[in-house]
Amino acid sequence: YEDTQKWSYENILDIIAVGFDPDRTFIFQDTEFIANIYPMAVKVARKINFSLARAVFGFTEQNNIGIIFFPALQIIPTFFEKKRCLIPSAIDQDPYWRIQRDIAESFGYYKTAAIHSKFLPALTGPTQKMSASKPETAIYLTDDEKTVKRKIFKYAFSGGRPTIELHRKLGGNPDIDVSFIWLKYFFEPDDKRLKEIEEEYRSGKLLSGELKQILIDKINVFLREQRRRREKALDLVDKFKYDGALAREMWSKKII
Amino acid sequence: YEDTQKWSYENILDIIAVGFDPDRTFIFQDTEFIANIYPMAVKVARKINFSLARAVFGFTEQNNIGIIFFPALQIIPTFFEKKRCLIPSAIDQDPYWRIQRDIAESFGYYKTAAIHSKFLPALTGPTQKMSASKPETAIYLTDDEKTVKRKIFKYAFSGGRPTIELHRKLGGNPDIDVSFIWLKYFFEPDDKRLKEIEEEYRSGKLLSGELKQILIDKINVFLREQRRRREKALDLVDKFKYDGALAREMWSKKII
Repeated sequence: YEDTQKWSYENILDIIAVGFDPDRTFIFQDTEFIANIYPMAVKVARKINFSLARAVFGFTEQNNIGIIFFPALQIIPTFFEKKRCLIPSAIDQDPYWRIQRDIAESFGYYKTAAIHSKFLPALTGPTQKMSASKPETAIYLTDDEKTVKRKIFKYAFSGGRPTIELHRKLGGNPDIDVSFIWLKYFFEPDDKRLKEIEEEYRSGKLLSGELKQILIDKINVFLREQRRRREKALDLVDKFKYDGALAREMWSKKII
Repeated sequence: YEDTQKWSYENILDIIAVGFDPDRTFIFQDTEFIANIYPMAVKVARKINFSLARAVFGFTEQNNIGIIFFPALQIIPTFFEKKRCLIPSAIDQDPYWRIQRDIAESFGYYKTAAIHSKFLPALTGPTQKMSASKPETAIYLTDDEKTVKRKIFKYAFSGGRPTIELHRKLGGNPDIDVSFIWLKYFFEPDDKRLKEIEEEYRSGKLLSGELKQILIDKINVFLREQRRRREKALDLVDKFKYDGALAREMWSKKII
């Protein structure tokens, strides 16, 4: 419990650092906001029996009764307003919304819509998934500059050739090169510049190490800015959680 | 949900009418007090898996995920203080306390103690159980005088004989007569008077109808007083729930 409190605080700082409007954003933790949402969670829970929850989430007899109850809570934000809710999430969260769509209308609410984001490739290769428990698969928002450099050089899956000579002769493959893919999705907003990098890499003019260095520089610029924004976020946490215009409205509202 | 809110309000009035000290009593509803107890409930829930909950409470796959989570909440009041808790309840609540005793010490709290009350016989017979859903088995605190009279005359299981002649000759049996048992446990505090009634009934001098009338009068005196106290209780609800000395202390306290 204490660990999740720490992690959620770190997550909140990262979310704020992205740049949301504190008067139009409400960040809450179940453990605090529970009095406002619990009555509705009780109603929702009545519509989900163990048999259904097991079929949808793969629960077993060994799962604890807290995690079994959790789907009832996870669904509640779709009932914050009598409007159709739009949820950005990855596909692994979809089971919750499927149950939501089964029961929403019986409470007079709308079935939720969802936007599914694609998983971006892990540092270790385009077919792998980033993981919070495997530091070599991802760059964390809290990694320092030296760590970034070390991780990219050591783990970033490369589309380059085994030797410089071969690379100059045959060229690299940007389609499977994680450094290039990350530049494309995250860090190089200029399409012309991206095209240049791609062609130089494919032609063999740009080496793998050079490509990695381009990514490292971009990531470190981004993380420097992120650290600056996280510093500022410290003062904004209470506004997003309690004092902002939307936050105040939400705390005075019982979802039922 | 709306029904349970109504019933719990009625229960609260009855509890207050009994005469507890509003500064030393805290009455709460889970739906309201949940923010104070939810963090601890999450910790407790982690120690109870479905397999255990099913073994102890007899859950099936058809039970909803709210009722499956409920044992985690039911246990929390035993953690309100770092003292040994004493719970007065009927035997059917014991499974909760058995789980509590398994886990309490791992959180640094004490195993709870319990006092088990006996079920009193239903109106319909000494081997039956009163039930909120079977009006003929019990007198409700909200029954009016006419209802009390009708229920006792119609349903109260009697130890009397089929005819007055036989009753005068053989006498009644107070040991199985619910009117007499209720007088004994609830309504006749004077042991000498009780003894008199018992002997007169056993000898046949006192008829079943007369015994019932004694009980009816006693119940109606009690209910008249209970109605008066319930009226006064209306003004005390907020004190027991929010404003009394203990209530204020509890609301400012997070159980963890």
